[in-house]
Amino acid sequence: MIQVAIMGHGVVGSGVAKILTTHKKKLYSAIGEEVYIKKILDLREFPDSPLADRFTKDFDEILNDVEIRVVAEVMGGIHPAYDYTKLLLKAGKSVVTSNKELVATHGAELLAIAKEQNANYLFEASVGGGIPILRPISQCLVANNVHEIAGILNGTTNFILTKMIDDGMEFDSALKLAQQLGFAERNPAADVEGHDACRKICILASLASGRHVYPDNIHTEGITEITLSDVKYASSFNSVIKLIGDVKFLENGKLDIFVAPMIINRKSQLANIDNEFNGIMVRGDCTDDVVFYGKGAGSMPTASAVTADVIDCCKHLKARKYLFWADSNNENVLPYDESRTAVYLRLSSPDKDKAKDEVRELFGETTLLSVPNEPESEFAVVTGEFTVGEIKEKLGALKSADVLSCIRIGNL
Amino acid sequence: MIQVAIMGHGVVGSGVAKILTTHKKKLYSAIGEEVYIKKILDLREFPDSPLADRFTKDFDEILNDVEIRVVAEVMGGIHPAYDYTKLLLKAGKSVVTSNKELVATHGAELLAIAKEQNANYLFEASVGGGIPILRPISQCLVANNVHEIAGILNGTTNFILTKMIDDGMEFDSALKLAQQLGFAERNPAADVEGHDACRKICILASLASGRHVYPDNIHTEGITEITLSDVKYASSFNSVIKLIGDVKFLENGKLDIFVAPMIINRKSQLANIDNEFNGIMVRGDCTDDVVFYGKGAGSMPTASAVTADVIDCCKHLKARKYLFWADSNNENVLPYDESRTAVYLRLSSPDKDKAKDEVRELFGETTLLSVPNEPESEFAVVTGEFTVGEIKEKLGALKSADVLSCIRIGNL
Repeated sequence: MIQVAIMGHGVVGSGVAKILTTHKKKLYSAIGEEVYIKKILDLREFPDSPLADRFTKDFDEILNDVEIRVVAEVMGGIHPAYDYTKLLLKAGKSVVTSNKELVATHGAELLAIAKEQNANYLFEASVGGGIPILRPISQCLVANNVHEIAGILNGTTNFILTKMIDDGMEFDSALKLAQQLGFAERNPAADVEGHDACRKICILASLASGRHVYPDNIHTEGITEITLSDVKYASSFNSVIKLIGDVKFLENGKLDIFVAPMIINRKSQLANIDNEFNGIMVRGDCTDDVVFYGKGAGSMPTASAVTADVIDCCKHLKARKYLFWADSNNENVLPYDESRTAVYLRLSSPDKDKAKDEVRELFGETTLLSVPNEPESEFAVVTGEFTVGEIKEKLGALKSADVLSCIRIGNL
Repeated sequence: MIQVAIMGHGVVGSGVAKILTTHKKKLYSAIGEEVYIKKILDLREFPDSPLADRFTKDFDEILNDVEIRVVAEVMGGIHPAYDYTKLLLKAGKSVVTSNKELVATHGAELLAIAKEQNANYLFEASVGGGIPILRPISQCLVANNVHEIAGILNGTTNFILTKMIDDGMEFDSALKLAQQLGFAERNPAADVEGHDACRKICILASLASGRHVYPDNIHTEGITEITLSDVKYASSFNSVIKLIGDVKFLENGKLDIFVAPMIINRKSQLANIDNEFNGIMVRGDCTDDVVFYGKGAGSMPTASAVTADVIDCCKHLKARKYLFWADSNNENVLPYDESRTAVYLRLSSPDKDKAKDEVRELFGETTLLSVPNEPESEFAVVTGEFTVGEIKEKLGALKSADVLSCIRIGNL
């Protein structure tokens, strides 16, 4: 019998407890031993839970219990999860988590402590919820040089964009609907401003590059500025707008990494990933594009990924899984101004002909988009490829038109 | 330094040799040791290969070399791969392979020998080529009860169907094009008759159920009977025709497993997997649908999966990976006549009204499909759900119409 503890009995934690108690036979056959939940840490009371006798409010009861070998940290947030995880790893226990904020912020340090202690720190659930992605990248795709990872990493924003694209809803109404359906928090900033997606692309970039990429100074745009006009122009270009976390591993060793809305062709596998679903594309030099699709959040999908990590730790009590990256100071991150891309521009001008001429002078050949009932003073073009810095400069120099939207064109 | 051998220097084998020599740095950082190709077995001569000095025609040079710890068997076919693999495993060497025919036919026996010898027998590349699928199922989705696995498992047939659907090509022309482009063999039977897909769904079913499923008496239909008329009727039903390998894990412990063309809704993730690409959907009770997409064949994608297995063996020279299933005699396979499904029927009758009445009498409520320029004597319907045995019986009793096509409706 292997004894484990769960820290946090919220949406994910209660799911982990449920799977560990209802899937006993399946788990036994995977490990060859029973997994027993000895303690559940939560400040709240759960008198009606079938596991009511296992609850504790005292972290030390888990930390100091030598029989507890594996701990699932599903509290979320940095404090106290960070301190608890450090203490547990230093005590030689393995820790698994769905806490993307903690992994993105302190992953390198926690992985180093785990390595030192010959313990495991696993976090498959931190990216893509129930979608297997970290293990496939670190194990199955290990014989590839990965050129790029790009994904729809946030279900809330994908749901909102899908409603805008498919049903013509405005951003505000789509957000309200997402909140009603439980896909968005009452304070949706972390989702709609792209921070959640940023943590996830940083974890993927860290894993694939072997060096921690900190979210702090990664360019992060959300979807709050996207309008139905942009959606319609994109559609006329046989494309959809998706919020993409993207990292390209450049030949000079730099990472071109950012989170931004992107206009991607309908033929792309990522274009058809709709509603609250997530999808992650990994471009390897041997495999070409491999795409992983599924529910990126939710109690049971996320809990199933956490539980799979618990099982992996139980199978490797005395061995380390090869999941590791070194610390860094983001010196390998390409400045965003040097990132190359084509862009879609929506512009407003009292003299469209003059403005189009000026745009052509500044950007060279462009593709003019057109939609039915285009406002008289508005037009939209797709440019060729430039660096973001060059684009900013050109737009700064543009005199005869105002820039209403500027969105990256994705080659995904 | 870990010494390995490769048996076979064809499409996949030469790819493995290439990756092991060109990705040295990446592989070293994954294993912490160098991987050295000591021998390559092939009856042909490769005097211009940079590895020319490693070639041998004598299997015993590999078998009897105690320094060779891991062998990649990429010869294909049953003989002599089966005997060689047995001898190598019995000698305590780990073997990895892309040989789906061998795994589907003798997997249980070879896995048992590997277990006995504390060696590994891995075959990620046997299903889905470069797409990670066996490891995700056995590791990441281990906390799920898997209800169903369904996939587009054969790139050749998917390419042909895509050309029929998107470009209105007839089957014969699409097959010829596939042959010209190298997506189909000169003798395409194993692909177009569904046998290749059958081996793969059997491997997936064996892994997920823990008991070997032999391809021999699994219902296997190919795509040779699919016509452009069927494609058009499917399109009118907002659906496409795909060749699907499907296994449902029923509550009574039986496996409802088969390979057949299926009409699936365009909204399904599998519907958008086109051309030579493969896609596999795994339905778990916790994760819901997870889909894996990528190139299911080809030299480098397949070789990258074989190489990842080589690396895994190198990292586990003294430990076994938990990849195993027991032998069986297919007694847990549901007789195909008991498989439940709705079907699309295309029928021909001199008296369509009478025939439609009779169909309604036999099948109850049906949905009538219609396409532009429908032949005067032809019509098509979608029925409700019945067992295959019931459908056969009803069609046998049908007097006023001839059955031109009968295709399963997929709920994927």
